[in-house]
Formats: sequence, C-alpha cells, structure tokens
Amino acid sequence: MLDAIKARRSVREFTGEDVPDEQINAIIEAGMWAPSGLNNQPWKFKVLKGEEKDELAKFTKYAHTIKAAPVCIAVFLDNKEGYNRTKDVQAIGACIQNMLLAIHAFGLGAVWLGEIINRHDEVEKALKAPDGCELMAVIALGKPKRKNQTSERKDLENLLL
Amino acid sequence: MLDAIKARRSVREFTGEDVPDEQINAIIEAGMWAPSGLNNQPWKFKVLKGEEKDELAKFTKYAHTIKAAPVCIAVFLDNKEGYNRTKDVQAIGACIQNMLLAIHAFGLGAVWLGEIINRHDEVEKALKAPDGCELMAVIALGKPKRKNQTSERKDLENLLL
Repeated sequence: MLDAIKARRSVREFTGEDVPDEQINAIIEAGMWAPSGLNNQPWKFKVLKGEEKDELAKFTKYAHTIKAAPVCIAVFLDNKEGYNRTKDVQAIGACIQNMLLAIHAFGLGAVWLGEIINRHDEVEKALKAPDGCELMAVIALGKPKRKNQTSERKDLENLLL
Repeated sequence: MLDAIKARRSVREFTGEDVPDEQINAIIEAGMWAPSGLNNQPWKFKVLKGEEKDELAKFTKYAHTIKAAPVCIAVFLDNKEGYNRTKDVQAIGACIQNMLLAIHAFGLGAVWLGEIINRHDEVEKALKAPDGCELMAVIALGKPKRKNQTSERKDLENLLL
C-alpha cells in the first residue's frame, strides 16, 4: 500500500488502448468507498469516451491529454447531497485519490485535471449535468505510454508544526 | 489495493497501545505523496499526544474519541501555499485518504474527525498554529479495539450521470 501510494505518478501520455468497462466500474467503485462527512457520499461520475470526451478538450489547455486518453471520468460534487462545502470538497478529494490508486493498481495511468474546473459551468452545460452537480475534476486515464516518471515532495520535517 | 480501499472502516475505539513514531512518520509521508494542484503540497501536520491531544477534546462532541486515541494528527491547509480554495481542499482530502489507507495497512485504525473544524479558529489558537494554517481535520488513530465494523454505500448505478 505505502509503496503504491509513493509509486503513483501523473500519466499524461497513453497508448490509446481501450480500458475495459469492468475496470472503469471498479475504479469508480474504489472512489465510492472513500469516507465522507456523515457518510453523505456527495459524488457523481460521468464516464466519457469518443466524441463526448473529445468535446471537453475545448474547455482546457490540456486538450491534448483529454484527446490522448481513451477514457475520461468527470467527477462532480452533487450539491443537493452536500452539507458543508469544505468537508464535501475534501470527500471529493478522497474519492479521486482512491480512483487514482485503483487505476495504478490496474497497471493503468491517469492524470487529475483540475484546470478545467475554471470553466466548470460550461462543462456542466456541455455534459448536461443535472442541477446542483458541480464539476470537481476530470480524470484522464488509459494505458501509460511511458513509465518511471519522477516527482518531488517537500521534506517531512518542513511540514510538521 | 482495491480490497484495502473497501475494507477500511472508521475506528473509534482503541486499545490504548502506543503507535511507534516510525509508523506515525510513515503515515504522514503517505499523506505527503498525494497529488495537489501545481504540486503545491499545501498541507501541514501536527502530531498530538498526551495532554496536548486531550486539550482538543473540549472543541468537539467527539471528545471521547480524542481521549481514547493514543495519537491524533491535526491536518492543516497552509493558505500561504494555497492557490485555489476548491483544489487545495481537494488535495487535503486526497492527503487524508492516503493517511487513512496507510493506517489501515499498518493494522491500525482511525477516524477522520470533521466536526471539530466547526471550531477551527479556537483549535488553531490552542495549537498555536502559524498564521494562515487552517484546521482541515483531526485524525484519531490507534490500535483498534474491535474489527468487522460495517458500512454502507449507495449503488454505483445511482451515481452515474
């Protein structure tokens, strides 16, 4: 577990190979098992492929990544299920992290696209998201083209109060 | 990984046995390896034991849990490192989820206390948190007294848009 947590990296280039539906469902199920305040589970998901996925490219400077990934999963906060903004948004973060770890466990790769939420209202409209569903992130995933990406973290000592 | 994600439960009763510092550090390190927007890593942590920990009990209705746990870890958003409230709070959620999974991997148990942030300003003062450090959650952890807690989730089909 600890090794997987440290080994996970953002993956932005994909082979184009498809991801089986069973894996997509298992990834979302991992997200669902995140904890949430009062167990309110305020998340909703939309699986995007093909044209519907590619349409998202116009809302982000990471258009290339959206197009390169065989699958994107849009993650929403359903504000009708929410009870506290900070706690609900934290729960969404926990949910996304579970999904990224599940993706990693399948030997797949993904990147958590956050910049696209700067235009969340346009994306919600394009995806016909129900009232109250607010885009929180898009996860672009697929089979990684390369491995061994590096990443850096601050020193633990500097993070302790 | 998927099994661990589904098997993790909130644990609120502890044997009182201490948690070794090496495990506490490894748990925080797991949190540190969460992704964050622009890799800004906006988290800070404070490890609490003994009197300093017990002092937190007065800020929450979950006083019993704070007292029962041998260790609490207060997780803060360092707003001086933040760049976008929603994305920073999501990153904190991802960080906490990594910590909960690491705790589970060590055979320990924990509960994510969110209610205490309703009085975050008082807690920040009591813990002498630096300016800009905002309490996001307290994780109470230790050796679980019991196992086999159950939990429920919504059906996947109802979460798909």
